[in-house]
Formats: sequence, structure tokens, C-alpha cells
Amino acid sequence: MSGTVKYQLDESHIPTHWYNIAADLPVPLAPVLHPGTKEPIGPSDLEPLFPMEIILQEVSQEREIEIPEPVREVYRQWRPAPLYRARRLEQALGTTARLYYKYEGVSPSGSHKPNTAVPQAFYNKEAGIKRLSTETGAGQWGSSLAFAGSLFGLTVEVFMVKISYQQKPYRRALMETYGARCVASPSDETDSGRAILKEHPDSTGSLGIAISEAVEVAAKRDDTKYALGSVLNHVLTHQTVIGLESLAQMEMADDYPDFVIGCAGGGSNFAGLAFPFIGNSLRGGKKPRVIAVEPAACPTLTRGHFAYDFGDTAHLTPLVKMHTLGSTFIPPGFHAGGLRYHGMAPMVSHLKQLGLIEAEAWHQSACFAAGVAFARAEGIVPAPESNHAVKSAIHHALRAKEAGTSPVILFSLSGHGHFDMQAYTDYFAGKLVDQPYDEAALKQALDCLPQVA
Amino acid sequence: MSGTVKYQLDESHIPTHWYNIAADLPVPLAPVLHPGTKEPIGPSDLEPLFPMEIILQEVSQEREIEIPEPVREVYRQWRPAPLYRARRLEQALGTTARLYYKYEGVSPSGSHKPNTAVPQAFYNKEAGIKRLSTETGAGQWGSSLAFAGSLFGLTVEVFMVKISYQQKPYRRALMETYGARCVASPSDETDSGRAILKEHPDSTGSLGIAISEAVEVAAKRDDTKYALGSVLNHVLTHQTVIGLESLAQMEMADDYPDFVIGCAGGGSNFAGLAFPFIGNSLRGGKKPRVIAVEPAACPTLTRGHFAYDFGDTAHLTPLVKMHTLGSTFIPPGFHAGGLRYHGMAPMVSHLKQLGLIEAEAWHQSACFAAGVAFARAEGIVPAPESNHAVKSAIHHALRAKEAGTSPVILFSLSGHGHFDMQAYTDYFAGKLVDQPYDEAALKQALDCLPQVA
Repeated sequence: MSGTVKYQLDESHIPTHWYNIAADLPVPLAPVLHPGTKEPIGPSDLEPLFPMEIILQEVSQEREIEIPEPVREVYRQWRPAPLYRARRLEQALGTTARLYYKYEGVSPSGSHKPNTAVPQAFYNKEAGIKRLSTETGAGQWGSSLAFAGSLFGLTVEVFMVKISYQQKPYRRALMETYGARCVASPSDETDSGRAILKEHPDSTGSLGIAISEAVEVAAKRDDTKYALGSVLNHVLTHQTVIGLESLAQMEMADDYPDFVIGCAGGGSNFAGLAFPFIGNSLRGGKKPRVIAVEPAACPTLTRGHFAYDFGDTAHLTPLVKMHTLGSTFIPPGFHAGGLRYHGMAPMVSHLKQLGLIEAEAWHQSACFAAGVAFARAEGIVPAPESNHAVKSAIHHALRAKEAGTSPVILFSLSGHGHFDMQAYTDYFAGKLVDQPYDEAALKQALDCLPQVA
Repeated sequence: MSGTVKYQLDESHIPTHWYNIAADLPVPLAPVLHPGTKEPIGPSDLEPLFPMEIILQEVSQEREIEIPEPVREVYRQWRPAPLYRARRLEQALGTTARLYYKYEGVSPSGSHKPNTAVPQAFYNKEAGIKRLSTETGAGQWGSSLAFAGSLFGLTVEVFMVKISYQQKPYRRALMETYGARCVASPSDETDSGRAILKEHPDSTGSLGIAISEAVEVAAKRDDTKYALGSVLNHVLTHQTVIGLESLAQMEMADDYPDFVIGCAGGGSNFAGLAFPFIGNSLRGGKKPRVIAVEPAACPTLTRGHFAYDFGDTAHLTPLVKMHTLGSTFIPPGFHAGGLRYHGMAPMVSHLKQLGLIEAEAWHQSACFAAGVAFARAEGIVPAPESNHAVKSAIHHALRAKEAGTSPVILFSLSGHGHFDMQAYTDYFAGKLVDQPYDEAALKQALDCLPQVA
């Protein structure tokens, strides 16, 4: 048995700056529009929701944004995260490809989400904010913000998509262990939640609904701001520590990826790994194939429209130009709750339009089969979301075997599945079915996209 | 906020040898006796259960035992494990003590158990064995052996204590993800199991019963050996990578512990951290207070007898001299299933008799309160077993505050609690009660200890 190889950087290699891909774009991002006037918004329009430091990062054109020392100090608890050469998986597959994975499950909450939760909590604390409201799908973001809030003494209130709240009670217990309050969404605590419940009393919720509730709470209270776990530019920028470290680790391995693969729900984990590699190629470096992998039951990049849309269901957020299935689209309740979002990060969508990235969609049973094969070879049980990246990586590794080529495939293992074992239990019991989305509902949601001149 | 400090060794610091405390004992360990003849056994008596390499380690008097390169190669996936200075916890407690913890939850199965599961699987594979049988309490050992088995291509069969099988379905799912078969014990698959079920159809099981079942299966099949997750000398020796790394990390921190604290069920996690420090003091070095922490509901070291007893309930194992509550004692079904064993490692018991270690017992509600305080400060949610070490460390840190002293307290955080969130849920719901053991049952079990001349 030839073992899996770890490329471990020491803590002096934790990045000092995040990478902001806006500085390297060949075409600038479309402006964010006010939901009422449909005119471009300015920083002050976002002030009810975010502290100014975060708003400035959201619109920054600087290539490098300094990571505050108190944030790096927290990062040190688990960063640099390890990058592995998956030799045992390569042998199990009999592939000629070289497979690498960057593992973000070493964080206290078990996923990549603390990379942005910690700076968001820090900037809010610095701005004198007492309370953060947010939404969560699978619970990885909510538990990460709960963790970050506990470090900086902020109260955290999490609106958790109801289907996940029911399927994943232990994610809720984790949030409560960190001292946060967790509410099933749609709830009767907000106007947005009550409106949904009135029309659909049995609603299992969606990220779009939960975002509406969290935004509403923040907008109504002076001491409270909103924190988002994906989609926005500053979130994606914070996640680039993943890719920046991976660049250094691939150099340790004396290799460079031909494929860079990440699962994509809102897009932050994918962007975190991919943007530093895309940035390199935009500045004249090698150009790997960069693939965002999404669930076939919520195929935003592969089946959505590239259009202006709301980030939430109640239409409280600004309009952003992105790949979207329509803000009223409710995806089926599959297990990768973190990928269950109607939209995609505007920056990821923009790169897709520019042809700088590709997208793939896979059904969940194929993803779980890949995750189990991965666990048996590499020992780590991936989160259902991460299984999408594993599936794609294995797919391309097996194609390489057929073609007799030896590509270097790097993928992001965004989190472990220790809180998602019900999904594995269902998989082994044959209860995990592939749920197609409702074609008619999708058409209707796309027909209702807001009209923007 | 002054942050938690990580002392991270690079992989060149993974120990090349395990430390065998037998070489440094002032008084040798009492011999192991044959259950029939009550005469000391020889290596050949253990051959039905273990491969010869493991038997030789069990009786070795060599101070250093070389770690095979294929085992070190697997260790590299997560070792050296980090050692942290718990500055955020110190601040939350307002203590003058300096608190350090060695974190073993970074392994693929989330606890210290793979440290011995991997070499046990390796030695069995080398000896041509196809199948391993074992028992598990909380599931940490069973999932770790399942992980190790999957790496070396061994079939693994796990008898899981029924109360844990019911309380922790996700540990079972983890074992199945690694490809192992998991059976609730007592089961109807063995004579031992059937005998218990006949007398106690509602038995929730115990480690003693599960050991009987696993031993029976191994003894009856030529291609199958037995693997034990704690108690025996070779298991404790494999775990010394914990303490050996900690010695180097405390040197990095320019500090040395006044207290060395670990939770103790069978004793392997405690021994793994403590033995290298005790060895140092036996060879003339500084002598810290070394404390084994056990559940008040299963108080082996603090309330048991030091006597020859069986390791299992059906009396299939040899007799070992140890602290024991009697092999027929069934502890109440509290949440730290990994500490729910009637006996204690003979080597740990021996050190207790020699006055080289102390023991403390705490009830589970106090341990969970300590675990939640730890999680809110340090971000890591401990396993219920580990909460016992956390409780003791906090207790001594607060006593230091009262006394105005500044001791250095090192404790083992043997695993994370991601599979144990039901226990945290119960704790927050006020449903987690302290369950005293049955005094009359204990007296009866102790009265039934085997008579040895």
C-alpha cells in the first residue's frame, strides 16, 4: 500500500492577504441594482445590513485585501488546512490521473465556512454590533457563524431551512452548543416567514426564504447586522485562503492542476479554491479546466438563466446579475442542503459567462456512491455537498484512465459528513432517491424573473 | 482577545518508536493467568486471538518498539496531532493556570483510537488474517478499526453495546461507510450473546458482554483474530504517540506540565498521554501529578477492587490483575459509552497501586457543563468521554485561581463530539441526569470476583 501524502504548510504560510479576483477581470461585474429604482446602488444602501468595512470589500477593486491579525490568530487554530495526494483512492480507481484534495473539514465546525464567518464576526464586533442574524441550509454556515460569534462575544440568530432543521437536529445542537439561537424557517417571527406560512403552511423552506427572514430581522434592529455565508463578493474573497494555500501546496508537490474542481451552491467554496488559480491564468499563467459541480436537482449554472434576480424569496435584497432558477423556485429536499439555492454567486456566474469556468450537474445517488468509495480509500467521510466534487473528480480520473492520459486533478473537500450520517444511512438502506426538480415550477419561476431594462 | 496557540510539529516529528513503560517499572506487572488453571499463561495461549507480533509486544520489556513504516505512513494523514494552549478558555475562566490540550479528534474517525487500530490491522494483515472481530462501546473504537480495516483490506465485524447502538446510530453508519458490519450486543450470533439474552432479554449490553461475543467469534474461526481497543499493554503502548508528541510540543511551548490529565475507561487514551511523562519521572525527570478521570457512574479506579478478574462477562478471557467493579457489573447507560467498562488496564491499575497516578470521578452533568464551556471558548465540541478530562482540568484551574498559583495543566482531548450531539441535545433540554450505579449490584459483583491463590 502506497500511502496518501499530506502537504502540510507551517503557520507562517497562512496568507496575509485575501485575493480579490475583481482586480483581474477582463470585463467588470454587472452593477448591483436597487430593488425599487432598479438603479445601481451605492455603499450607503447596504449600511442597514453590513458594517462599512465589509461593504468596502464587497466593491473593492484591489487585488489584495489584508487579513486582520485577530482573524489570522483564529485561522491558526486549524490553518493552513492540509492538502493531500489521494494515492489510496488513485489505486482503488486504477487511474493514471494524479488526484489531490484540499481538506477544509479540519475547522472546528467541520467545513470551509469559518474562513469567512470569523472575519465577518470580527468586522461586526469592531463596528460595535451586538447581534448577527443569518440563514443556513445544511447548517454548516449557521454553526460556523455560531462558532465565530462565540469567539467575539456576539449573539447569533440563525434561520435554518425547515427541511434541514428536521433532517439535521445535530447541526442545530452544535449551534446551540456554541450559544446561538436556531429557528426553523419559514418561522412566525418575521413578516416574510408569516407570509409564506399563510400561503404554504407545510413549506419545508428554502435558502431564499431563510435569507428573507434574516435580512428582515437585521434591517429592523439597530444593534443587529446580517451575515451571509456565500454568494457575495466579500465572502468569496475571504474563502480564497483555500486556493492561496493550495497554490503553495501544489508547489510543494511539484505539480500543477489540469483540473480544479469544487462543489457550488452559492459558490463560495468553489470560488475559494478556484479564484487564485483563475487569477494566475488571467495574469498569464497556466490555464486549468475549472469546474463548478452542482446538484442535478438544483442546476443553477447548467439550467438557470443569467439574469438580474433577487437573492431571496420575499424580494428584500438588491438585484444581482447571476445564474438563477428564479427566486420563487423551491428545489426538492435532497441531502446536500448547502447546495440548495436558487441562485449562484454573481462573480461565479460572470466567470461562467466569460467562458473561464465550466459547470457540471450530478444526481445525489451517484455522488454518495463516490463519497463512499472516497471514504473507504482515504478514511475521511465527506459532507454530501463535498461528494459532488468527489464525484466529478472520480469521473474525470476514470475518463483519464480510458484515454490513457495522466492529468493532475485538484478538488476541494469542503467539509466532513459527521453531521450528515442520516444521509449515508439512507444511502445504504436504498432510500436515497434522485429527486428531479419540477420542470413546470422551474419554467414558472424563470418566467417571473424581474424585468430590468 | 488573545488567541489559542497551536504547537504544530512537522511530520518528521512523528515518533519512530512507541514507548513501553514496562521497561521503567519499579515493580513488574502481575502475570496474566489462564482462566482454567489459574497459572501464568505463555504467548502460545494467546495465539487463537492475536497474531504473534502483537503477543510479543504485549509481553515486551523493551523500552522502545519500532513503529513499522506502513503504519507511520498512515499516521502521517493526521499526525502529529496538534497541541494547543487554551488561552481563550483560560480567559473565560479567569484562571492563573496555563492550560494545554492535546487534540486527537483530527483523525479520520475523530478520536485517538486509530493510533492502535492501524498497527493492529497492519500486523494482522502481515500475518495473513482476513477478518477482525471486535467490540465497541460509544463506537469510537469500532469505527476506527473499521477505518483501519478498509485501508488494509480486512473484513471487520463489530459487536456494539446495545445501548450505544440505539443511542448512536450515526456511529454505526460510520462503520458501515468504512465497509464494516455492526451488530447490536448482546446478539443471537454467539453462545455468549444468546446466554445473556436468555437470562436478560432486555439487556442493554456492556463492554464485558460485547468482548465475550467478539472473542468467541475469533476463537472459533481460523481466518479471524480479535482486536481490542484498550486495556492491554500493546494497545496502551501504541497510544504513547500522544504523549511522545506532547513532550516535544511542551518543549516548543517552553513549559512542562504540573498536571497531566486524561479520561480513563479502559485506560488507553489516558496511558497514551501520561506514560511518556511518567517514564520521564521514573528515569529522574520532573514528576507531575498524573490524574485518570472516570465517570462517577462507573468508578473503577476510585471504587473498584484491585484483584484478578476476567476482562469479559462470559469469562472467556484470561485473568488479569486490575481495578475492577466485577465482570458481572452492568453500569448505568450514561452517555460516555467509551468509559463504561467494569475494569481498567492492568498497567494503569498497577501504577495506581504504586502511587504513581491519582484518580478522580465526576458525574456526567458536571462534565457536560465543562464541555460546553470548553466549546464556547475553544470552538471544539468534545466527545462525552473527553468532557471528563475537561472537567478535571477546569476544576484544577479554578482551584489554582483560588490559591493564587499558576500550575501548568496538560490534558488529553481524546476526540470530538460530532457523533454525540444527542447527548448535548439532552443536556440542553435538561434531560441529562446523573445516574448513580446500583450499590447492591456492585457489592454482589465484587463478591463474585474469582478466587485466586
